[in-house]
Amino acid sequence: MAEYHGPTPVATVERLSVYLRTLQEAKKEGKEFISSIQIGNRNGFTSAQVRKDLSCFGNFGRKGKGYHIDTLISSLRNILGLGKKWKVALMGLGNLGEALAGHKGFQKSGFDIVAIFDIDTEKIGTKYKDIPVYHPEKLSEIAGKENIEIAIIAVPNSAAKKSIQRVVDANIKGILNFTNVRLPLEKEFVMKNINLASELETISYYLTHPDRICRGV
Amino acid sequence: MAEYHGPTPVATVERLSVYLRTLQEAKKEGKEFISSIQIGNRNGFTSAQVRKDLSCFGNFGRKGKGYHIDTLISSLRNILGLGKKWKVALMGLGNLGEALAGHKGFQKSGFDIVAIFDIDTEKIGTKYKDIPVYHPEKLSEIAGKENIEIAIIAVPNSAAKKSIQRVVDANIKGILNFTNVRLPLEKEFVMKNINLASELETISYYLTHPDRICRGV
Repeated sequence: MAEYHGPTPVATVERLSVYLRTLQEAKKEGKEFISSIQIGNRNGFTSAQVRKDLSCFGNFGRKGKGYHIDTLISSLRNILGLGKKWKVALMGLGNLGEALAGHKGFQKSGFDIVAIFDIDTEKIGTKYKDIPVYHPEKLSEIAGKENIEIAIIAVPNSAAKKSIQRVVDANIKGILNFTNVRLPLEKEFVMKNINLASELETISYYLTHPDRICRGV
Repeated sequence: MAEYHGPTPVATVERLSVYLRTLQEAKKEGKEFISSIQIGNRNGFTSAQVRKDLSCFGNFGRKGKGYHIDTLISSLRNILGLGKKWKVALMGLGNLGEALAGHKGFQKSGFDIVAIFDIDTEKIGTKYKDIPVYHPEKLSEIAGKENIEIAIIAVPNSAAKKSIQRVVDANIKGILNFTNVRLPLEKEFVMKNINLASELETISYYLTHPDRICRGV
């Protein structure tokens, strides 16, 4: 009931995204209502956690019936900022860049990669999966023209600092960073780092300490 | 001081992995000691969080001097199960699979992709980046022979259920899943799901609600 307006922990936002996906699945299965217990069970969270997270953003439940799936999907989409299309720049067209450029899940969620930037002169001026490839020098110009608000950094670690700096200079405030490089950024920039080796380290931790396995990995 | 032996929340393990990387960087910079404040500052966590996380696993700090970097690196590596090499199977050699097969960060952290599985008859029997490619039917046999303990699922969503089932049947207990498919697994299996669109949704959330930006994104 009482909405919370302070900073939102990243872990909370990540769970909202998981809940949204769960609701979309339940809807596909033909369900109209879902309980916090059911949402929790499908993801390894407790129902208390689900209720607590959602109550931070509004009063969605209906006593005895659970959440109305369509309504909650629409609310969560708005909360997550998915009521609009986001234009995305992809920095780097190596193996990872190619995989990301072809990733259908982005478009489904409303994220359109509209421009790719790479220093390879053989790639510049061509298209990959119908997306034009430019020299990174062009980033500010294209970002302004296309209204790009998010950049994905998929360049080698050695090129990361320069690439992130270009993104910041182009005033692109959302950054998804696949490199190891971390830069201190002004408060209005939002940088999310994905470290693929860390993901495996979470697994090796639990395999090494099976007594500490925690549902919801 | 008081070590904790219950289930470890995933978020805690993920932070340990971030701390390890921070320590490795600090070591490269020639530092010998580091404080919880410095570890926190580099990652957007509070020093209290850093101290709390580490105190669950031992008594590492030295009053006034902070943590001895080499000692803490070695301890964290052991805690995360990185004292050994892990053999990894890669399921799917599409764009994402190729990117993962070529990802140098895995090997650096001790994760060796030793076998790739794909249904494409043109790929089966060849090598990709020196790693042999097999038909998925061979998974159990190769996993047993090679002592594979972790599998990465990088197949299309439509093939995911079958692929995860093969991994479970081969008794590979650690699973890093890039698909949308979620399967209920026995307690001893550890499945970590990465949803790339969710990562962007975290960014779109904070861009939509800049007043709620929380350091440590």
